[in-house]
Order: sequence, then structure tokens, then C-alpha cells
Amino acid sequence: MSENLNNNTKIPRVRVRNGVILVFFLCIGWQAAAQEDSLRLRALYDAALTRGKAYLNLYALCKEAPAAEKAVQLTARQLKEAGADSVWLQPVMVPKWTRGEVEKLSAEVDGKTLVFQACALGNSVGTKGVLKAKVVMVPNLDALKTMPRAAVEGRIVFFYQAPDPKHVDTFHAYGGCAGSRLYGADAAAEKGAVAVVLHSLTLAQHGHAHTGTLIYKQMAKAIPGMALSPIAAKALRTALTSHPDLELHMEMDCKNHGMVPSFNVIGERYGREKPDEWVVVGGHLDSWDNGEGAHDDGAGVVHAIETIHLFHTLKLRPRRSVRAVLFMNEENGAYGAHAYAEFAKRQKHIFALESDRGGFTPRGFTLETDTPEGKKALAKMQSWAPLFAPYLIHILSSGGSGVDVGKMRGQGCVLGGFIPDSQRYFDHHHAPTDAFESVHKRELELGSAAIASLVWLVAEHGWD
Amino acid sequence: MSENLNNNTKIPRVRVRNGVILVFFLCIGWQAAAQEDSLRLRALYDAALTRGKAYLNLYALCKEAPAAEKAVQLTARQLKEAGADSVWLQPVMVPKWTRGEVEKLSAEVDGKTLVFQACALGNSVGTKGVLKAKVVMVPNLDALKTMPRAAVEGRIVFFYQAPDPKHVDTFHAYGGCAGSRLYGADAAAEKGAVAVVLHSLTLAQHGHAHTGTLIYKQMAKAIPGMALSPIAAKALRTALTSHPDLELHMEMDCKNHGMVPSFNVIGERYGREKPDEWVVVGGHLDSWDNGEGAHDDGAGVVHAIETIHLFHTLKLRPRRSVRAVLFMNEENGAYGAHAYAEFAKRQKHIFALESDRGGFTPRGFTLETDTPEGKKALAKMQSWAPLFAPYLIHILSSGGSGVDVGKMRGQGCVLGGFIPDSQRYFDHHHAPTDAFESVHKRELELGSAAIASLVWLVAEHGWD
Repeated sequence: MSENLNNNTKIPRVRVRNGVILVFFLCIGWQAAAQEDSLRLRALYDAALTRGKAYLNLYALCKEAPAAEKAVQLTARQLKEAGADSVWLQPVMVPKWTRGEVEKLSAEVDGKTLVFQACALGNSVGTKGVLKAKVVMVPNLDALKTMPRAAVEGRIVFFYQAPDPKHVDTFHAYGGCAGSRLYGADAAAEKGAVAVVLHSLTLAQHGHAHTGTLIYKQMAKAIPGMALSPIAAKALRTALTSHPDLELHMEMDCKNHGMVPSFNVIGERYGREKPDEWVVVGGHLDSWDNGEGAHDDGAGVVHAIETIHLFHTLKLRPRRSVRAVLFMNEENGAYGAHAYAEFAKRQKHIFALESDRGGFTPRGFTLETDTPEGKKALAKMQSWAPLFAPYLIHILSSGGSGVDVGKMRGQGCVLGGFIPDSQRYFDHHHAPTDAFESVHKRELELGSAAIASLVWLVAEHGWD
Repeated sequence: MSENLNNNTKIPRVRVRNGVILVFFLCIGWQAAAQEDSLRLRALYDAALTRGKAYLNLYALCKEAPAAEKAVQLTARQLKEAGADSVWLQPVMVPKWTRGEVEKLSAEVDGKTLVFQACALGNSVGTKGVLKAKVVMVPNLDALKTMPRAAVEGRIVFFYQAPDPKHVDTFHAYGGCAGSRLYGADAAAEKGAVAVVLHSLTLAQHGHAHTGTLIYKQMAKAIPGMALSPIAAKALRTALTSHPDLELHMEMDCKNHGMVPSFNVIGERYGREKPDEWVVVGGHLDSWDNGEGAHDDGAGVVHAIETIHLFHTLKLRPRRSVRAVLFMNEENGAYGAHAYAEFAKRQKHIFALESDRGGFTPRGFTLETDTPEGKKALAKMQSWAPLFAPYLIHILSSGGSGVDVGKMRGQGCVLGGFIPDSQRYFDHHHAPTDAFESVHKRELELGSAAIASLVWLVAEHGWD
């Protein structure tokens, strides 16, 4: 269509000749710059795929540092070994919650005990002994809001809706259900419920329960929450069909212990021309206790460390400074992110990129574009599409960033998110299978290379 | 740049008004058609992700029909159950080769026996007892060709080069080494070698040996061939560094049994307007004996069956007929493909699409474009990019098709290949881990949906 239009318009040659000449020389200059960038990206990819440290660093993080305190020491050391010019710890107070020893959900049906695979939701209060109550089935949070108090009072609310498999992007499927986990306990307590249980926020059909935070606005009214494995959720639905009055027995001794000191871990590589302007690349150090947090967010952590490592290995020093920020406590309040955002107000940040969607094959990046600087940055990033095409990076679009860098919103910094393939992420998310073995070496390395490439381009060229 | 150019030219409005009106109405018509296609693709994806049979069909193929004969019966039944209008078997003679019971590779070093994980290459002759010989290390086939006969004669040639991890597309890494496996034995025999061993054609660093066919042009000079697991290949290199004169002991009793009868399995859905024009969607039924052939090519088989199933489920009957062709013997001569290509000369085929790159997240499709009809088809396929964009299908480009549909080259039919993500494919390719468990349900289903979508568009609209 546009081709026909051009044919009809018969653009007079003379009128554009100067423009053409200008364009020609601009093109020559652009081509030289583009070729340099092209070689730079190739070098980053080659180094990541042949001399990368991301996979070994992830192994150590998953197997040698299961607790947050150890992870702080380990990753600070990894950043030093990666060649960071400076490594420092930013103190931050974070909430401490423990799962405890007991985690049981069962029912007596026809004289038999049915045991349902289930786990405490993060932040949940315990049950103080065995909590026994009948169940009310509710598809989701919205449905609960329309229900009369009488239907809910004294019962355990069972949010039975599984994420919708029709979404191609599994984050949309997750987003469609996450409200039940985050706010379900509060909403149920408002109507007199004594606890909530829910279908794990996963599209997998397996026997693992997936934890994740719930948020109490009113601790005085806090009721316990558990997630059922997809198979257990199906079993409970079946049991409730034949025995709608069955009584669930819930027992958990999880506890909130108040605030304890911790740290964000920060590694820096100074810029060669504008060392006071910062590009942040980050992931989060904390992970749920029931797995190793390999994809969530060990991958993001080693992606960030690897950016420093690849620049150091290739002796790359872009114009602006690069800071790998390993945020503490993304899962349970994002106190680390709040602390970093507060600190960041005192410095010029032009870009903050978050990797918190796993260590899978990279598909691209999204930028938040509801600010003028975001819109301008998107156009610039899209102009780099030919540089990324050989690496099958095809998403360079408007979209979200992440929970951690999102805390810098409104500070004039462009915010972005790394987008890997999403199909397997929620199989492991917040579950015991989120272990080192679920991460693929090359996929992780390609992620490091893609991230280091974008960080290079922004730190070198800026958004103008 | 192009924006500036347009601003300079000041296109006079009046001159394009008629064009604009024409374009406007063309757009309306195009939009309605595009919207219909858009809804069709959405329906195909929804059905694949919620009511798909591909995963269950693959389970049965992997677990219930390990042998080719059983797979013929099973998939013919699956095609009937999928709702094919007709199902038939095309007889074809195929070579039969058996691995035998013994498969050993070892060396005596400093009084100790080193055992190397290794497996016979498909088609290989046996060793007739234990073959003992010294080793000559050669990186690859090209290097062998430059070597003097004296360096090779009487020895076992060890092609030690692993695929190059710097390739982002792992098929390029594979392609760079496949010559050693395919033609290495013949080339080595030419220079008097007594056997070949090679680094498995995989980027994984594990203890599994990957088989695959070797081709003898002269059976009289056939020497045996084995593939070493990546770890075993490394171990052998290390041993040869300290003991260059070590003697390898090789023992295999694999055998070629000549030609035996088998079948291509074919399921058809007739077109509503042009039933005599055919669109083929195919994968191959045979797989290597050391695994279940889940990705290679169980995935392609169930992709093809699922195309029929999805059309039947949604009561879709495109203008042209669709034929799922499950080719026999892709791995070892492609006799099934030759037979189908011969048959296809008698019918009008407008498109043949092959899925033989695994059941991973779809990235797109390639078409062979060295013919005029291929070039025209590529432009048409690329005009469908907006329809595929919501499903993250981004590769719609010139490229290869596949070994099976490739046998129809020169018959006027457009040839295409399905391109899923390649990172994990060669971890499993021709190895014991190519089992049902290595296939991800949603990734497989998304592949079915993408393939059914392209088949729909071509069978409905053709290439004009």
C-alpha cells in the first residue's frame, strides 16, 4: 500500500538532492558507528558463551549460599572477582519471616485422611495449633468481593482458579491470578474467613506447591494463607464436589520476626568520560526458602555480575559508569529497592535495567514509556534493533521494568526489564524445583550477553 | 532519516486523494479479512492450549510405541481419532540397522582400564571382535583431508572438535561439525584408517553419547564409527596428551540387515473449494534407538497430527486440502521422503512444511527462496507478520526446510521449515535423554498452534 502511495506522489529529485547527500554522509558515519557497536556485541556474546562465569557463579549462589546473609558475602566476592572497580554493601532493614517446621493441610473424608500438598504463603501468620473449618470455594478475588459475608464467615476461602493457559506470555496468566495470593487473605478476613488456601500460581500440572508473599494491611486481622499444588488443588475440588461440608485441617507454625539488618550488594565499573552518570543493572538476592531461587532471581543476580565481568574481560569501559545492584528483599516488601531508590536520588541515573524473569533464552527488553524520557529512550533502543537481530532479540518495546528498579519511578531515570522466554518460568517460580538444575547454561549465558549488550549501548551512547 | 526526507518533500495533498480513497477501501477490505484471520489464529491457539492432544499423543508415541512398526499403527490411529477424513499408509522399503548388544570403547593406561562412554554411529559396521589400534587426533574432516596417509594408516581417527558454542543458532554449530560424522569414516578409510571416533555433535557438556547416521559410499571399505560423550571426548584428549601412543579397544556388534518393508503414515483433511491442491505438514516417524525420539521427531509427528485435530475440533475446512505426512526413515536414508516426493509429482502441492527441530517454544518459519514461487511465498508469509506477532512468532524469513520435504525440491512446491528455539535441541538430539520428559507441554502446544496457523493461512489463501 505505502509503495503505491510513493509511486503516485512522484517526489521531485532535485528537491531532495541535498537531503540525500546529507543522508549519505550521515549514513557513512552511522554505519561506522554501527559496525563498531556490532563488533562490540559480537565480542560480548563470544566472551559470554566461551569464557562466561554466570553459570559457575549461579552454581555457587544456589548450592553454597542458601541463606541471604551468605549470599551477600558470596556475591560481594563474585563482584570483586568479576573485576568491579569498587564493591560495597548498602545497609537496609528487612522483615524476617520463617516457615517453621510444621506445614500441613488435610481433611477427613469417609474415615480416610486426605493430605494435600501445600505450603505457607510468605508472610503468613501461623495457625496456633490445628485450625479446623469448612471451605467456601471462590474462583478469585473479584468473585469474593461480591459474596455475602454469611457465605464466608468462619470458613476457609479456597481460591480455586488456576492461571489461564490461553495467555502466550505466562506473566499475563500469572498477573491475572496474583491478586488472590497478594490480597486474598485480607479480603477474606474482612468477611470473617478464618484462613485462605489457593491454587498455586503456576501453569504446570504437578505436585509442587508454589509459595509467594501475601500482604496484610491490618496485622490485627491477619489470617493464615497456604498455596496448594495444582494436583492438590484439583483433588480438593473433587473432594468438595462430593463432600461440600468437609472440614480442612490446617497447621503451620510460620512466624514474622520483625525487622533485621541486611544489605544490598553493589559493584561498580567507572565510566571513562562521565563517571558521575549511572546505568544500573540489577537482580534480587533474596529468594524463597523452599527452593534455591535459581531463576528467581539467581539468574538476575549473575546476569548483573556478568555484565561487570564481561566488560572487565574485554577491557570495555563505556562513557558512563555501570553499577550492578543486587537488591535484598524483593520478595517480601522490596526494602532493598526502596533504600537504593532513596540513595539514587543523589546521583544522576540514566537507566536502570532489571532481570527478574528467569535465566531463559532472551527475547528482548521492555522500557517503561509513560514519561518523556521513556518515550525517547524507546525510540533509541528500537534504533538498535539491527544490532540485536543476529542474536534473535526481537522484543524492543514498551512494557514493564521490575519490582526493584520500579522503586526509582519518578526520578527521571529510564526503567527497563529483561524479557526472556516465559514458558518455563512459572513451572519453577517460588517452588522447590527452582534449583540450579532447572537453568540451562547457554540460555543463561545468552541472557548475560544480551543484557551486557544493552548496558553497553546505553552507557556508551546514552539516550540522545 | 526517512522522516526528514518526507518532511522535505511536501507531498501535495490533491495528487494523492484518489489514491488515498482507493487505499482506504482496500484497507477496509484487508482489515476485515485480516480480522477474520486474526480470530482464526486466536481460536487455533486457544484450542491448542486448552484442548490440545499433542502432549498426550507424544506420550503414547514415546512410551507405547518405541519401535517403528508400532509407531505406524499408533499414529494411524491417532490421525483417525484426530478427525482426518482419510488415513492411509504408503508402503516404502527402508534399510534396517541394529545396534547389537556390545558397545565398548576403552584403553589400558598405566595398567588401568579407562572406559569411555561411547555409542555406535547409525549404519556403522561392527568391529568383528575387539579392534585395537593407536589413535590419530584430527580436529575435523577438512583437517583430515590435508593429512598424509602415513599419519592415518592403521589408526583410529579421533575427530575431537566440539561444535562451536559461539553460534547463537545451535543448528549452525551442529552444521559446522556434522561432516565428520556423516563422511568421516569414508574419508578416514580412504587414508587407511581402521575406525573413527568423534566428539558427539552436541553443545551440552554431559556424559551421554549422541548417535546419528554415517554414510558409506563404498561398503567394501566400510570402517566402524563411534561417538564419544563430551566428557569422554575430553577424557580421551587428556589421556592422549600424556599417552599419545595409547591403544584404543573398540568393540561393537551392530549390523546392517538390508531393506525391509515399512510405511509413511498419511492423514488427510479435504479442502472445501480446491480439494485437489495440497498443503503438506510433516515430521518423521523413525527415531534413533538409544532414546525415545521425543524431540527428534516425535514433536514433529504430533505437530502434524495436531494440525488435523485442531482443524477438526474447530470445524475448519480451508479451501485447499491438508495432508499430515509422517515420513519413515528420515534418519537413515530418507527413503520415506523419496517415496512421498515421487507420489507427489502426480498431484498439485502448493506448500510442504516440515517440523524437525524439536518441540520447543516457536520462533517462526523459514521458506526456501531459490525459486520464483519461493520468493513470492516469502513475501506473502511476511505480510502475515502482524497476525503472528501476538504469539511472539518473529522469524518469517528465507532459510531451509527439512530433509524430508526437501526431497520435493524442483517440483514447484514451496518448501518450509518450522523454527522453534534451538538452545536445548542438541542436548537431547540422538541421545538417551531425547525422551518425553524433555518436552515441555506448553512449548509443544504453542508449536502445534503456530504450525496449524501457517497451514491454515496457506491452505485458505494460497500464495497469490
